[in-house]
Amino acid sequence: MKYDHDIPYKIYLKESEMPTAWYNVRADMKQKPAPLRNPATGAPCTFEDLRPVFCDELIRQELDNDDRLIPIPDEIRQFYRMYRPSPLVRAYCLEEQLGTPAKIYYKFEGNNTSGSHKLNSAIAQAYYAKQQGLKGVTTETGAGQWGTALSMACSYFGLDCKVFMVKCSYEQKPFRREVMRTYGASVTPSPSETTQVGRKILAAHPGTTGSLGCAISEAVETAVSTPGCRYVLGSVLSQVLLHQSIIGQETKAALDQYGIKPDIIIGCAGGGSNLGGLISPFMGEKLRGEADYRFIAVEPASCPSLTRGVFAYDFCDTGHVCPLAKMYTLGSEFIPSANHAGGLRYHGMSSILSELYHQGLMEARAVEQTRVFEAAEQFARVEGILPAPESSHAIRVAIDEALRCKETGEAKTIVFGLTGTGYFDLVAYQKFNDGQMTDHIPTDEELQASFALLPKVPGQK
Amino acid sequence: MKYDHDIPYKIYLKESEMPTAWYNVRADMKQKPAPLRNPATGAPCTFEDLRPVFCDELIRQELDNDDRLIPIPDEIRQFYRMYRPSPLVRAYCLEEQLGTPAKIYYKFEGNNTSGSHKLNSAIAQAYYAKQQGLKGVTTETGAGQWGTALSMACSYFGLDCKVFMVKCSYEQKPFRREVMRTYGASVTPSPSETTQVGRKILAAHPGTTGSLGCAISEAVETAVSTPGCRYVLGSVLSQVLLHQSIIGQETKAALDQYGIKPDIIIGCAGGGSNLGGLISPFMGEKLRGEADYRFIAVEPASCPSLTRGVFAYDFCDTGHVCPLAKMYTLGSEFIPSANHAGGLRYHGMSSILSELYHQGLMEARAVEQTRVFEAAEQFARVEGILPAPESSHAIRVAIDEALRCKETGEAKTIVFGLTGTGYFDLVAYQKFNDGQMTDHIPTDEELQASFALLPKVPGQK
Repeated sequence: MKYDHDIPYKIYLKESEMPTAWYNVRADMKQKPAPLRNPATGAPCTFEDLRPVFCDELIRQELDNDDRLIPIPDEIRQFYRMYRPSPLVRAYCLEEQLGTPAKIYYKFEGNNTSGSHKLNSAIAQAYYAKQQGLKGVTTETGAGQWGTALSMACSYFGLDCKVFMVKCSYEQKPFRREVMRTYGASVTPSPSETTQVGRKILAAHPGTTGSLGCAISEAVETAVSTPGCRYVLGSVLSQVLLHQSIIGQETKAALDQYGIKPDIIIGCAGGGSNLGGLISPFMGEKLRGEADYRFIAVEPASCPSLTRGVFAYDFCDTGHVCPLAKMYTLGSEFIPSANHAGGLRYHGMSSILSELYHQGLMEARAVEQTRVFEAAEQFARVEGILPAPESSHAIRVAIDEALRCKETGEAKTIVFGLTGTGYFDLVAYQKFNDGQMTDHIPTDEELQASFALLPKVPGQK
Repeated sequence: MKYDHDIPYKIYLKESEMPTAWYNVRADMKQKPAPLRNPATGAPCTFEDLRPVFCDELIRQELDNDDRLIPIPDEIRQFYRMYRPSPLVRAYCLEEQLGTPAKIYYKFEGNNTSGSHKLNSAIAQAYYAKQQGLKGVTTETGAGQWGTALSMACSYFGLDCKVFMVKCSYEQKPFRREVMRTYGASVTPSPSETTQVGRKILAAHPGTTGSLGCAISEAVETAVSTPGCRYVLGSVLSQVLLHQSIIGQETKAALDQYGIKPDIIIGCAGGGSNLGGLISPFMGEKLRGEADYRFIAVEPASCPSLTRGVFAYDFCDTGHVCPLAKMYTLGSEFIPSANHAGGLRYHGMSSILSELYHQGLMEARAVEQTRVFEAAEQFARVEGILPAPESSHAIRVAIDEALRCKETGEAKTIVFGLTGTGYFDLVAYQKFNDGQMTDHIPTDEELQASFALLPKVPGQK
């Protein structure tokens, strides 16, 4: 094995070397992401528009395009020290198995009980809610990673946490639910009888197993109708990318210590929280003309918002209660095929990443899930970590790029984000192990029908 | 919070500082553990007695009382670098919540996909099997941690891995099974039709859900009847404690770097693999008169081998096919109450630990599972790690000792072993969250009935 004694398997920053500020990539973008718009008026959202739903400080972060570095409050840094820095791992064993001259690194965010990077933003959002004197927060969860992360964060700060969990997940993933309960969260299957919107949907569709869009609507309704309560969201929003920039900040600091310059940086992309966080400081260098990198967003072929969506204002949620965002979108009514196993099911993409992609600063690639699980299993067997299906999208493309290097003989340096572990996704692994996993790619007709439902917004065709 | 800037939350050794040898505590014991005995003759086991069942080099390690340091082969050290060093964590948040002057540290072994420390010995045993030119190994698994660890190790070295999984676990823990399959292991519910002993038990008890003893017997039968195959075991044996000494070696190196001297070292104890591994180098200092420590073994009140067992030769397995070992035992027919949720269900205890306990060099404490899960939940909420039920036995006593310090005002340094994560134990957490967990302590009559079945061994009453 080509073990380089100068570069350990795992690079850990010392606690004293951990980043003390988040990096706001919008500060370095010449063309800023388009503003959120009020769905009722079509006008850009103001602070006051958003106040009934979101925490004050988080709205400020959402609307702030200009401050490059946002200091991380001490209390959040203290929590970060509990599970961070996360390791930057040199994939020596994977490299050897592939026989590639490429050097592969991954930033592993799964070593915490939420099992993913989501905790980085959950603790920040819970902190600002606590600072504002709120009593609690609401949210929705599909696969369950965000709900788990938020439960952990709220438990730490003594906040009430109410999670609306898509009913089919609630029933199929009782263990995820139980982790949230262990952290003191209340978990309600959605749709529920506890909200107007839930009762309405149950009356219309008595047997429904729920959807993320419906769970969002229930969480927002509960937040605005409960005194001292706000709604929080785990991806898509610019504030979330800001908090997740801790991933990229640490990655860059670790690489810099060893004088390593990546050629390609790869991340899976659903709403964009992990990818945006990972690439932000590197993208900043590119935007400022200080360095050049290739960035690759990897999305499921069954939910291909960047590679096959349109760049337009759309609803962030199926219930159409949240602001409009300009983004690459498949239409807010789009739901990926039921056979899609991993997460990354969001119909749109972070406005920041959408704008960067639109400007040609980032590439995107869609991959089919059977090839994703092949990569997941290959990775698990040599690197000793059972990856989350979401993360395995990035693994797939990292392996593809490393094999390309094998053909060309180039010793490129590839960095990818390993967002989490697959311990709660074993139903999908079982399907794969049993040879029963299939792929589904939406047809052009399906997408066109979904695009036809995009909202009318001033200046948008 | 009393955050001491000189001592980070997590102490990681550098890869260059990782131990290069296992430490064999038997070398420093004046009174050695009693030898294994042949169940047929009652005579001490020879190398040749054990050869049909175990790998050659592992038998040598089992029988070796004298070599203090056993170099860790390069291939094993390479694998260790994939998931080790494990962090030694300062439990700042737990200390704050308890309001104790005590300083609490834990050595966390759960950051690998097997979810526990078991991988430390699994990779060693797989390596020696590979070195011997064997094709594969068999084993049994109950809760599933050992089976998962062995699957990962065998996958790495390209060995066949056949796991007999106690049938009720096989059915109740499909996710554990699926991880093993993902690592290429064959997993058979036990009792099965694939062995003589399995068929015999199924004929006698058609509806049986299996037991660890039966699974061991099936695994041993399969090993001795399959060319190029041997049986491996994840606890109890002295070779396993040797491999697990990596835990203690790392812990000691990390503490030494910061000049920290523990007062109390605590570990959960089932067969003894984690506790033995954690305390070995510290016990060595105590045996050599170089330092003094309190050691506390924590066991379930429902399976109290040290605190209520007898010190005698007994069968290691219910099927009575393995050698006899002198140990604290509840009798090989003893099965803990069905309401017992965590692992640590073994009827006996490592001969090394039994001898150390018998000599008064170590204490033992039995705790009830409802108090164990209370500690688990308290720990999870402030330290951010959902602990395995087994590990939570150690947490319970660490908290109890820290609270005692609060009463006395002593700032003792407590180190405990956090053996793993509870991601596959959420059925038990659910029972606890729902208030349906109960305790069961065996009666003296039950234990006496079990002791009456101890084997007749020369020199034993």
